[in-house]
Amino acid sequence: MSKSASIPPHWIEQAPPPGSFRSLFKWGDPQGFKHPNRGMVDLIKETFGMTDADFVAPQRTGMESVAIDIPSDLDERHLAAFRQMVGEENVQTNAYQRTRASYGAGMIDALRLRQGILENLPAAVLAPRSTADVQAVVQYCNSERIPLYVYGAGSTVTRGMEAVQGGVTLDMSRHMNKVLAFNETNQTITVQAGMWGPELERLLNHAPKAFQARRPYTCGHFPQSFMHSSVGGWVVTRGAGQNSTYYGKIEDIVLSQEYVTPQGVLQTPGFPRCATGPDFDQIMMGSEGCFGILTSVTLRVFHYDPQNTRRFSFLFHNWEEAQAAVREVMQGEFGLPSVFRLSDPEETDVALRMYHIHGTLADKALRRLDYQPMQRCLLLGSADGDAANTRLVARKIAAVAGRYRAFTLTPFQVTRRWEKSRFTDPYMREDLMDFGILIDTLECAVTWQQVPEVHARVREFVKNRPQTICMTHLSHSYPQGTNLYFIFIARIQNIDEYLTLQYGILETMQKSGAAMSHHHGIGKQTGPWLEGQIGSPCMDILRALKQHFDPNNILNPGGTLGLDMNLDQRQKRWGFRN
Amino acid sequence: MSKSASIPPHWIEQAPPPGSFRSLFKWGDPQGFKHPNRGMVDLIKETFGMTDADFVAPQRTGMESVAIDIPSDLDERHLAAFRQMVGEENVQTNAYQRTRASYGAGMIDALRLRQGILENLPAAVLAPRSTADVQAVVQYCNSERIPLYVYGAGSTVTRGMEAVQGGVTLDMSRHMNKVLAFNETNQTITVQAGMWGPELERLLNHAPKAFQARRPYTCGHFPQSFMHSSVGGWVVTRGAGQNSTYYGKIEDIVLSQEYVTPQGVLQTPGFPRCATGPDFDQIMMGSEGCFGILTSVTLRVFHYDPQNTRRFSFLFHNWEEAQAAVREVMQGEFGLPSVFRLSDPEETDVALRMYHIHGTLADKALRRLDYQPMQRCLLLGSADGDAANTRLVARKIAAVAGRYRAFTLTPFQVTRRWEKSRFTDPYMREDLMDFGILIDTLECAVTWQQVPEVHARVREFVKNRPQTICMTHLSHSYPQGTNLYFIFIARIQNIDEYLTLQYGILETMQKSGAAMSHHHGIGKQTGPWLEGQIGSPCMDILRALKQHFDPNNILNPGGTLGLDMNLDQRQKRWGFRN
Repeated sequence: MSKSASIPPHWIEQAPPPGSFRSLFKWGDPQGFKHPNRGMVDLIKETFGMTDADFVAPQRTGMESVAIDIPSDLDERHLAAFRQMVGEENVQTNAYQRTRASYGAGMIDALRLRQGILENLPAAVLAPRSTADVQAVVQYCNSERIPLYVYGAGSTVTRGMEAVQGGVTLDMSRHMNKVLAFNETNQTITVQAGMWGPELERLLNHAPKAFQARRPYTCGHFPQSFMHSSVGGWVVTRGAGQNSTYYGKIEDIVLSQEYVTPQGVLQTPGFPRCATGPDFDQIMMGSEGCFGILTSVTLRVFHYDPQNTRRFSFLFHNWEEAQAAVREVMQGEFGLPSVFRLSDPEETDVALRMYHIHGTLADKALRRLDYQPMQRCLLLGSADGDAANTRLVARKIAAVAGRYRAFTLTPFQVTRRWEKSRFTDPYMREDLMDFGILIDTLECAVTWQQVPEVHARVREFVKNRPQTICMTHLSHSYPQGTNLYFIFIARIQNIDEYLTLQYGILETMQKSGAAMSHHHGIGKQTGPWLEGQIGSPCMDILRALKQHFDPNNILNPGGTLGLDMNLDQRQKRWGFRN
Repeated sequence: MSKSASIPPHWIEQAPPPGSFRSLFKWGDPQGFKHPNRGMVDLIKETFGMTDADFVAPQRTGMESVAIDIPSDLDERHLAAFRQMVGEENVQTNAYQRTRASYGAGMIDALRLRQGILENLPAAVLAPRSTADVQAVVQYCNSERIPLYVYGAGSTVTRGMEAVQGGVTLDMSRHMNKVLAFNETNQTITVQAGMWGPELERLLNHAPKAFQARRPYTCGHFPQSFMHSSVGGWVVTRGAGQNSTYYGKIEDIVLSQEYVTPQGVLQTPGFPRCATGPDFDQIMMGSEGCFGILTSVTLRVFHYDPQNTRRFSFLFHNWEEAQAAVREVMQGEFGLPSVFRLSDPEETDVALRMYHIHGTLADKALRRLDYQPMQRCLLLGSADGDAANTRLVARKIAAVAGRYRAFTLTPFQVTRRWEKSRFTDPYMREDLMDFGILIDTLECAVTWQQVPEVHARVREFVKNRPQTICMTHLSHSYPQGTNLYFIFIARIQNIDEYLTLQYGILETMQKSGAAMSHHHGIGKQTGPWLEGQIGSPCMDILRALKQHFDPNNILNPGGTLGLDMNLDQRQKRWGFRN
């Protein structure tokens, strides 16, 4: 194993061997790395009482090959039928591909893979070439009662695609990744569900060449997983991009969708607004593969004018003033920021360490101005849109921040620094885990009034655990509320210990009255807590829709959205291992 | 009958006698009148070849009393039970109140009432005092299979509340019309479903006094029926206010809802956005009384700053340039106008007559500048929000209009003139009908690309009929599309002749690919065309939800949303008379 330097930490800088466990759990580009910087390492050492000696020998690095001898338990008759349907070359049965299609980018996935635990694999991975292929597979699985899962780009953090009942998984991104239509009059693009984010954005940014358009466009949707996410995944989980405060969540961006369900093909109507009964798009979005297989999506697109972007950042004296300022901006009716991200005191302190401000002369000056550690809060963001709009929004935000006694950091380009690492921060997870440090996130949605209590209760729960870092930010705000995004760092290697922490946080969130997710979705991870949050009458609607679309429960079965869980499973929570 | 002047037209200026048919179909305030002005009368005379002699003797004015001897066919046992549930004084069985609760403000309602046709009445009208009362009634009706309809403020134009199967109607606005909570941190208000629009707006405008708030607020939702509409009606029909381009349609304003269904009480979660499965609010909005009885709603509220409003108006050379300009504004990403209303050439000509511009020196000047009759198009509107925002939006719109060679009418205060009559124009309907002229509206939603074709096809259908005025405007626009609102004026007194025209337009809309409604809803009027537009797979979702909430089909039965229609009824269309 190559080491980047003789001084620890000895971060791994080697692409994972093809076919290895590490190649499955390593984030993003196999050649991509972003190591924790000195500020982060110092924090880790301080918090967990670690020394250089603890950062010499990486552990459980998953460099070994995935065993290739897990036999597919699907009857050969079915495999033959699938080969007939989608083509021989589009049916895979090796353990590596089956694991890849079932495991996501969640901490639980990485922990299992580092320990060599392979469970809940589909018997085969099928790559359909068209809606007709998907129809054939859905019909067959429905009549043969074969569970059917979906793989888009594999970045779920909620065990969304985990094939807990075996069966087959559809790999939507291998073939069904193309643009079907671009309509500049309507400012829409129609793509197949397996299209990956970066390819969509590349085409839109080059719309004059790609589509003979009059100008370049942007999709406006940039989740942290952007580089490794598919449009279908965005849609079925109700995802949000980091610029959602301006562009909206995916449910604000989707104009229509096509699904293949056991009942047939469903095409939603596709008008910006109408009054023709319930909103069918809003019924299907968030169905997480339980109602049908998403095959294509029509999305709104936006002007791509990066030259208009204005960035700003501020340091507030305390959490209360910072929250009030963010709320005032969101309710100000002068236009909305695009990225808008407020860190709580603990996250602010970590950020100041990572941006090498902690302990500098500038830091001393800030403290003298009464911006104190574990009190001060960092707000960063940007404005997008027409140039006059971004100018106005940035000016107004500066005025609001000033009224709340914030110190402007705009000249220090904090937002630019954040932008540089916005898609690469997840790479650090592998480095930390190599030395037994786990970093994970959970998030929820709240009204403004709920912010203080939910924040305090979740922090109280996490901080009751010794040596646990708990950072929080608001990253998607609205006039009526926001999200709370919790990042916790702990020295844990044991799966049950991890789950005790994670489930405790989910429990605390639910009891505090928050929505169980703002944009990660529910998947199988949070399924057990969904009914307790939305209430049984709403859960009954979900069940009625499930019964309508998928009466034989072949679509993403085994606890997704808490749908097919009995009370016993709900109580046990961690009940997925077969 | 009093006459306002000895020169015709002899408009009626007398409040309808209490208990009369006219008191049921007359729009709005019994003492309220707005007569067609000279420009309008001239147009009518020209179009229909009428003379002063035709405007002397009003016909079928409905001054006679509603017969009070239509016996209620509900078993006395049931009436006694209802009296027990909601209180004796809250059960009405006289024909007048039963008609009022079943007939709306549609042309078909007025035509029937002018001809003394009383049909489809509920057997009783119940005024519940609380959610508990509603629960008791719903449970009873469900177990006794008694059809249950809902009356809010009676301004449906889609036969939404028509009690085609008898049973009972709930009058939600008599008692359940109160504010339940005001939350300034979240900027929300929770009201009972029967609250009327003007009362809500009055309280919000006086929030410092009414709720000890820091500032005044507005509900932002002002349909033309505003003065005679209820919050519950806005919500269940997916209504839109005239300022929706800025404030959003009602589905953008609602944060949560409470319904009483045969399955029990349903409270939606109430977060601005979340990722916890389908959006339950968007399932219930548009259900038009078929899934449950809406009892309370939490709405977003907005800053009330009328001093910031900026108004503008422009005249374009032609329909194509005008549409392109409106689309460019909607896609411009500099902020959105509030009212934004583009008239097609025929409507523009009518407007210029009504605003007394037609035939003046100014008109001659405009023609010389090549703004020609039956080509030129009027755009009017306003911007709301923060002062800097309204300044920016107004400036940008003027710039776009300029690029499309529009002539600015802003100094002539056209928008202010429109605002003066925005809620009173419907009063003219009675005047015209008194002399055999019918004025009616139908509306649909379209993408930008569909505008030319849908507009052309509907106009072609209407104009194929001799002597028929067809005016069109776009009044609710989006980056991806808009609505088309058609107003037709014809000399018709016969119901079947009217319905032939109306159904022909609905048929044409559906065939042209438009959504069957942008904001009026579907009701029983448009029900027969819904499945053909949204497709059977979407209709099947509607039916599955109906089956879940209301398996005994007691809620608004008889064709609402096309739910319980058989093929025969769909083909007959006008199949509601018992």
